[in-house]
Amino acid sequence: MNRVFRRVELGREASDVYQGNGSRHSLLKRVFEDASRVVVISDAGVEGSLRSRFPDLDRFEWLTVASGEESKSLERASELWSKLCGLKADRGTAVLAIGGGMITDLAGFVAGTYLRGLPFYSLPTSLLAMVDASVGGKVGIDLPEGKNLVGQFYPARAVAIDPELLDTLPKGEWASGMAEVIKHGVLQGSPLWDTLLRLSREDLNDPATRESFLAQAVEVKLKVVVEDPYERTGQRATLNLGHTFGHALEWASSYGLRHGEAVGLGMLAAVRLSRSLRLLTRDFEEELLGLLRLWGLPISLPNPESDVWNWATMQLAFDRDKKSSSGAWRFIVPTRPGHVETVTSPDLEFVRQAVESLKAEPVGEEL
Amino acid sequence: MNRVFRRVELGREASDVYQGNGSRHSLLKRVFEDASRVVVISDAGVEGSLRSRFPDLDRFEWLTVASGEESKSLERASELWSKLCGLKADRGTAVLAIGGGMITDLAGFVAGTYLRGLPFYSLPTSLLAMVDASVGGKVGIDLPEGKNLVGQFYPARAVAIDPELLDTLPKGEWASGMAEVIKHGVLQGSPLWDTLLRLSREDLNDPATRESFLAQAVEVKLKVVVEDPYERTGQRATLNLGHTFGHALEWASSYGLRHGEAVGLGMLAAVRLSRSLRLLTRDFEEELLGLLRLWGLPISLPNPESDVWNWATMQLAFDRDKKSSSGAWRFIVPTRPGHVETVTSPDLEFVRQAVESLKAEPVGEEL
Repeated sequence: MNRVFRRVELGREASDVYQGNGSRHSLLKRVFEDASRVVVISDAGVEGSLRSRFPDLDRFEWLTVASGEESKSLERASELWSKLCGLKADRGTAVLAIGGGMITDLAGFVAGTYLRGLPFYSLPTSLLAMVDASVGGKVGIDLPEGKNLVGQFYPARAVAIDPELLDTLPKGEWASGMAEVIKHGVLQGSPLWDTLLRLSREDLNDPATRESFLAQAVEVKLKVVVEDPYERTGQRATLNLGHTFGHALEWASSYGLRHGEAVGLGMLAAVRLSRSLRLLTRDFEEELLGLLRLWGLPISLPNPESDVWNWATMQLAFDRDKKSSSGAWRFIVPTRPGHVETVTSPDLEFVRQAVESLKAEPVGEEL
Repeated sequence: MNRVFRRVELGREASDVYQGNGSRHSLLKRVFEDASRVVVISDAGVEGSLRSRFPDLDRFEWLTVASGEESKSLERASELWSKLCGLKADRGTAVLAIGGGMITDLAGFVAGTYLRGLPFYSLPTSLLAMVDASVGGKVGIDLPEGKNLVGQFYPARAVAIDPELLDTLPKGEWASGMAEVIKHGVLQGSPLWDTLLRLSREDLNDPATRESFLAQAVEVKLKVVVEDPYERTGQRATLNLGHTFGHALEWASSYGLRHGEAVGLGMLAAVRLSRSLRLLTRDFEEELLGLLRLWGLPISLPNPESDVWNWATMQLAFDRDKKSSSGAWRFIVPTRPGHVETVTSPDLEFVRQAVESLKAEPVGEEL
């Protein structure tokens, strides 16, 4: 159980990553070695499902917020800072995030700013948080004006990716996480893309298969963030594959579309944009459609005739998502599994067509 | 005018310090070289007095909060984040703080967290901010529960210490700043302590004298923060000389006592505690009293019979100020100008006597 961790250098910081079935025990042991006192930040849903299953988590003091993205707010951060004051937390107090991406982002921000930074540790409980939010050091909260507008780079000192925590993950949560894993597959190509094409849902019931699959998926994210921790070289920006379209779709639907669903549709649009721009060197749209179907992700827009998807709205939506690109629309488009290009200000007609294409269910073989 | 700066390494970051009369011009030029767009964060008082005197500041977009420590709040930070959203500030937008310590702390925190960090620059306008708040990388806001409870290490990329900005500084602000300069004098001993003992108020009307005096005072802070940027070795904690007593007095008085006044009285109490503990190897209390009198700082508590100074209240006040010391009361006490020791959990009776001693005006020669 006393598993060896892997030290991942993230710019000026480092994060120790514990991986594999049962690796949570190593993390919990580590936190207690490092800190005189540990406060858990979690959400009501996670607390309800985990605390009874894992009695060793009862040793900690728990601060819990309501489940859901709405809790990733300044109001909840403010409440948590006050509660830390109330607990007389000092710089020797560690904060341990236990939850999905909302919690690892929120708890990391609260920990990173309280007394100018408490020691921070992370135990992601959803597939999405394991393969994405919990590694790489980005923490933060949403503002009414948009998501993730306030935050820091504040990597967890240690994080455990423990597939056993996924035993009770709801099906919808699997789909959300798989959208990011499929994205990692497109970015890496072989071996992850090939693994995805071979894998059935049932395969993941086998603990060993699930463990090695998750390790492969996390690896893609780790490699990118280590090479470009502060999002400066363009390398880290490739993780936005499917997200320029995805964010716009999420916003247009007033977040009626879930993040994973939007990212899946966004990748589909990105493949089609790539085809229009004649950048696609291997057409893998059928493979992508198959994977989205397999994992219960939509392959066309719900209520396609709705006004929310009209081109004027979508243009506004794209305009909002430009925070690091000096006013230009920027898309990450795949050319084949394993290779992407960054396209700045493409012909708007191609972008419009890519969005339009999502309104009709593609004709093709059912898997 | 195109003055050379000094690069100061602060742990994993660096800050370029421009110093001397007129150095603000070099900073403004630098900010425009670095950034495509500059937003100033300032307060109403500073904006009113500086913008008319220095028309080159009109080139920037200004975001202004009300003057006073109450603005160093989450509410104002939240308002500034929203205004940055409204201005469509992106990662190419620099934030320039222009003001006293409240502004450099608040603006640094807002800049350091918006989009996970905008380029940040600082132009302090008060003596206190020049010799203390603006250098060293600590930024943050107050919570209802206490001062500076939320923040970061986020050093300005460049800062200018320009004595010409002090031309119109009110007398009360000089006193506040001088309390910290006197503290730096106690920490350094020669040459700053000797300079302070020789200096008259009129001497500072001479621009060259003021410039070299300020350079000496800033030097003390720079040296300490470079050696211990993250407050880990105990070196940076020496800057808390006079502050354990001072914070307790400020809090007990519900901030009726100004920070500089409280720090001056706190140093006096620290000298007396040092004497009681037989740590004082050269008794410089008379010199310290002379300096406090010269700069218009109190040498005894106002309303000495008031309930706010009773020992029970003061004990509560000390208890609040322990955030990095695991529950113990910790005092920095001078042994002579140029040397301090850290005393943990001293005999409470000596602490009580030191506070009690502040109730009576010392008998001694008037300067």
